[in-house]
Amino acid sequence: MAEEVILLDVLLSMFGARVRIALAEKEVKYENKEQNLSDKSPLLLEMNPIHKKIPVLIHNGKPVCESLIIVEYIDNVWQRKAPLLPTDPYQRSQARFWADFVDKKLYVAGNKVLTITTKGEEQETAKKEFLDTLKMLEAELGDKPYFGGESFGFVDIALVGFYSWFHAYETFGNFSVEAECPKLIAWAKRCMEKESVSKSLPDQKTVYEYVVQVRKKFGIE
Amino acid sequence: MAEEVILLDVLLSMFGARVRIALAEKEVKYENKEQNLSDKSPLLLEMNPIHKKIPVLIHNGKPVCESLIIVEYIDNVWQRKAPLLPTDPYQRSQARFWADFVDKKLYVAGNKVLTITTKGEEQETAKKEFLDTLKMLEAELGDKPYFGGESFGFVDIALVGFYSWFHAYETFGNFSVEAECPKLIAWAKRCMEKESVSKSLPDQKTVYEYVVQVRKKFGIE
Repeated sequence: MAEEVILLDVLLSMFGARVRIALAEKEVKYENKEQNLSDKSPLLLEMNPIHKKIPVLIHNGKPVCESLIIVEYIDNVWQRKAPLLPTDPYQRSQARFWADFVDKKLYVAGNKVLTITTKGEEQETAKKEFLDTLKMLEAELGDKPYFGGESFGFVDIALVGFYSWFHAYETFGNFSVEAECPKLIAWAKRCMEKESVSKSLPDQKTVYEYVVQVRKKFGIE
Repeated sequence: MAEEVILLDVLLSMFGARVRIALAEKEVKYENKEQNLSDKSPLLLEMNPIHKKIPVLIHNGKPVCESLIIVEYIDNVWQRKAPLLPTDPYQRSQARFWADFVDKKLYVAGNKVLTITTKGEEQETAKKEFLDTLKMLEAELGDKPYFGGESFGFVDIALVGFYSWFHAYETFGNFSVEAECPKLIAWAKRCMEKESVSKSLPDQKTVYEYVVQVRKKFGIE
């Protein structure tokens, strides 16, 4: 069957990156339609009328929204190559738990770091929350090469897109992730050796410059 | 194999209710350990050190946390009875999307209604957000008996625990869900005809009285 796969995406998004990586792992060909979130396209509004957000995967005309749900969908549909979620129910639940943790905690903590307006206490609180979250992830990783064990999978995909944002987090939070979480940086570099990851992620300088622009726009020093 | 299934739970929680209903649907016997969230037990802190929240399902000594993840786990482990998620990948993704929507939108909008402090604009805004969210759910339900179609499933489980809170939402928000969303109320009553649901949910008056106590404790009129 001829498949039509379209991704509504924004290059700098760590959520979009998850879908790009999953599709690359599965070697699925698709058309990427970069979106402008300041002026949302009729296609985006039609395909994701509820949240009006990217990424949206449109598979043979039918939309799937929310990045982790899309990655699970990709894993279900293109089963033959590169399984992303473990088959064991307990391991599956743990993978879902940590991917959900990234969404609930890391993303929120990261945004606080990026919107720091004053040095001093605010910066210290945001920095501590962000690094504590990364340390929990590092503890979960332990000495394994990937979160699921020997092979790259669901939690790696959920987290690695944040690596592109590390230079921005580090600059505005005034810390070094490598000094605090060396194993996590080693893991990120291991992931970046995979073409599915390195070709899907924007570089750290580009993300940093984007954050500088956004901070200016919102009048943050 | 002799199975040990323990649920760390709080009777009034709509998240705990999801797990109770899923276990009842699957006819799994378990021990319910009611938790006091003002004085968290060593067992809860040991089993959910990351979020320190209920519900936690402890299956043969191993914890699973986060209610929707637990319900998927239950569906994976006890497959023979009452399938909760559809098998078709697209239908699965849609079920996950709407369950996630309940967590991201309805829970948040509901809390705003319950913590209304002043009449007037604040009440109107909270009420509108909550009812708009319910209307989106009602539109998704359409004329189907259950969210997934002919049989009770994942989205029904994600949502129906909120029904116990409707009297509280209605009283503090000054609206009638039945007047605004009659099909949704008909759906809730249909769900309540199932013993797995009716025996798992606290009654609306008990929840209302609990909310009154909490509002008093936090000094809301």
